Amino acid sequence: MQTDKTFRVRIPQEAGSLQRFIAALSSTNASIGDITTLYIGRRYTHRSVTVEFSSEEHFSTVLKAVSNLPGIILDEVVDEVIQRHEGGKLLIRGKATIRTLGELREVYTPGVAKVCLALSHDPSLVRKYTMAGNTVAVVSNGTRVLGLGNIGPAASLPVMEAKAMFYGQFVDLNAVPIVLDETDPTRFVETVVRLAPGFAGIHLEDIRSPDCMEIEAALIRRLSIPVMHDDQHGTAVVALAAILNMLKLTDRKPKECTLAQIGLGAAGLAIARLAMDAGIGVVVGHDPIECARRMAAERGVRTVDLDSALRVADVLCLATGRAGVLTPSMIRPGQLILALSNPSPEIEPEDALRSGAAIALDGRHVNNILCYPGLFKGAIEARVSSITTPMKLAAAMTIASRADRGEVLPDPLDELVHLGVAAAVEAVAGSETETSEGSASP
Amino acid sequence: MQTDKTFRVRIPQEAGSLQRFIAALSSTNASIGDITTLYIGRRYTHRSVTVEFSSEEHFSTVLKAVSNLPGIILDEVVDEVIQRHEGGKLLIRGKATIRTLGELREVYTPGVAKVCLALSHDPSLVRKYTMAGNTVAVVSNGTRVLGLGNIGPAASLPVMEAKAMFYGQFVDLNAVPIVLDETDPTRFVETVVRLAPGFAGIHLEDIRSPDCMEIEAALIRRLSIPVMHDDQHGTAVVALAAILNMLKLTDRKPKECTLAQIGLGAAGLAIARLAMDAGIGVVVGHDPIECARRMAAERGVRTVDLDSALRVADVLCLATGRAGVLTPSMIRPGQLILALSNPSPEIEPEDALRSGAAIALDGRHVNNILCYPGLFKGAIEARVSSITTPMKLAAAMTIASRADRGEVLPDPLDELVHLGVAAAVEAVAGSETETSEGSASP
Repeated sequence: MQTDKTFRVRIPQEAGSLQRFIAALSSTNASIGDITTLYIGRRYTHRSVTVEFSSEEHFSTVLKAVSNLPGIILDEVVDEVIQRHEGGKLLIRGKATIRTLGELREVYTPGVAKVCLALSHDPSLVRKYTMAGNTVAVVSNGTRVLGLGNIGPAASLPVMEAKAMFYGQFVDLNAVPIVLDETDPTRFVETVVRLAPGFAGIHLEDIRSPDCMEIEAALIRRLSIPVMHDDQHGTAVVALAAILNMLKLTDRKPKECTLAQIGLGAAGLAIARLAMDAGIGVVVGHDPIECARRMAAERGVRTVDLDSALRVADVLCLATGRAGVLTPSMIRPGQLILALSNPSPEIEPEDALRSGAAIALDGRHVNNILCYPGLFKGAIEARVSSITTPMKLAAAMTIASRADRGEVLPDPLDELVHLGVAAAVEAVAGSETETSEGSASP
Repeated sequence: MQTDKTFRVRIPQEAGSLQRFIAALSSTNASIGDITTLYIGRRYTHRSVTVEFSSEEHFSTVLKAVSNLPGIILDEVVDEVIQRHEGGKLLIRGKATIRTLGELREVYTPGVAKVCLALSHDPSLVRKYTMAGNTVAVVSNGTRVLGLGNIGPAASLPVMEAKAMFYGQFVDLNAVPIVLDETDPTRFVETVVRLAPGFAGIHLEDIRSPDCMEIEAALIRRLSIPVMHDDQHGTAVVALAAILNMLKLTDRKPKECTLAQIGLGAAGLAIARLAMDAGIGVVVGHDPIECARRMAAERGVRTVDLDSALRVADVLCLATGRAGVLTPSMIRPGQLILALSNPSPEIEPEDALRSGAAIALDGRHVNNILCYPGLFKGAIEARVSSITTPMKLAAAMTIASRADRGEVLPDPLDELVHLGVAAAVEAVAGSETETSEGSASP
């Protein structure tokens, strides 16, 4: 694992001292990054030196080499990635600073009473006059976080904060991380139902399978605001966008193609289901676990054995959680490969390409950030009570359309992607509402 | 009830048109405020005109007078107080905007995994590297909001947002409003316990009595972060600060004085209890409700009948929720009066002064904003697990000390009050920790 650390050192005011320090680093093959002067004292210059390591052992070697240099004092070793998370990553503030008693009396008593009274008489005003109209709760219990497993609610907070940041940056929504110390699905659902009145949407995140499906289904049933488990449907939308573009880049028509989804866990099943809804010609799935196959069948996904899956697939999408499970010999020339497991994929893309795959990508490319901000924004703006398949398909199509020529997916930091997704989802959501209103009269 | 509204009107481009509109307003005795030009069109100038009314009837009269003026088009009537709450009052954003893939990979995968892993190995790091170190949850179920009663969770949100704003503005803490659709105290407590891992403190607000006491006690017992019901203890701290300054202004020593607390609900009982802890010579309480008297007795507050209370009191503090319950004839010359019920006090201060009271204040002066931001900030900075009586007393003393000469309480918008309270509370909290650590060895 390659990683950076920053040394804070005091280097004596003598010619050649910095050079001695750098030489000690270089002797260990450490790669040297930025060198910054922090403070110039009478005897010492304080500097920070960022160094890149190839492994923990390498770091130990380097640390040993620079710890006992005569006259040079090593104050501390700082991890800048970890430092970036210090104090949390979110800021929650009033939209305006209250400067006068008059303003205070408008936002707080007695003025606020008028607003509360209006909302209690007409609950439809809550969306307009409170944060419940523009705030998403990012809810997790930390039972399945990234590749780390069940690390619990508090340790999962840094992920939820990051997810919340992107709502603010890309689509101008507030988002609040809510980490629940509750692993029982029924009690988890009850808790979210109770806290839902303050939110415009519920983004579920990093919940173990199959709890995540049960929780999501129950919350969709019980709440009248959009609810989505991002690890299922956010992943499915972005994977579908990638699949559509891979087909386009290789001049194939979705209707004439076969997708084999290997691994039918929460994400895999959502991908297979959405690919069927998107009109991919044939979709088959494979999973060694019987329970996963049964759930797939319940959702109309046909399951086959691994050999058949590999044989028929134009597109091979893998979400197994098992690194290296796809060996080069299993690949047919011209196949399109999406190996989604993190942090290590089912096959390294370069190995897949070497075995004749036409295009191969891993999970680093299929970034959920591309989907969820715009998807929730569109649904919330349209004031619909749920996120439907047509909205997910609109999101996938928009994401696919924003990729640069020759690329499979667009840059997740391109804010036009997010605004495009929001607009497309809102348009579909609006027309769905009209249709369902129209169909109310038989 | 005096109130403002703003008329948006289109006034024709003809000499004398604006004058005609103003004349129509004036004919109804409406007081005219700002007149702003919004847009100048070919045929009309669009203007907004703010008008002050004495009553709803008055507003109807004015509306009628300006609705049918020839050629002048009334587009809408806007309430600016309500408008200030549009879109909610809070903004939640990342501390930094993510501009590059490198930054993205630090705040989100793969960098964030390193932080999550560190937190799962050492939970004490959660405070340092997540928002759980600097974020307060402002939690309510809306069962007793201002003077409005049980208006439910969603309609209470504007109050919680206002409370949250002040944490950000005054003491640099994040605060998240959490409104719960749950009136049962046991389930309310369970819910807060489950969501607590993401927070550094729990500020309870606008919960009906006696549920609020049961809920607060249970949460203090079950959580290891500061928990406080502001309507009880925030009110008590600010009331005590006012009482101490009223005594000082009239040259009386707290130890030689008698406080009668009329109304022993959640706030009244907290005031009586804190006044005893502050060393007020004699504290007696009165409440017509037997259950309230019993709870007071459990907390060591002596109860007496109303006549005795009125007779012995140097300071008369009222928190009855009943407007006008104290008649001028009940006041003894020289008494100090704090009539806290909102929106209308037990006696108007001017009536009390006319009957010989030395100083009289109502609830508008005793603003909870003076206390809670600094009190939570101090406790959180000191990393203590609860808010103790010495911390509340330190807060009250600091608030009292910041009042201008001759005044009873300081300006709640003076940020030095809040920083002063935070520093005083932190100092007391720190020394308490040392003492309790010291006393661990007998």
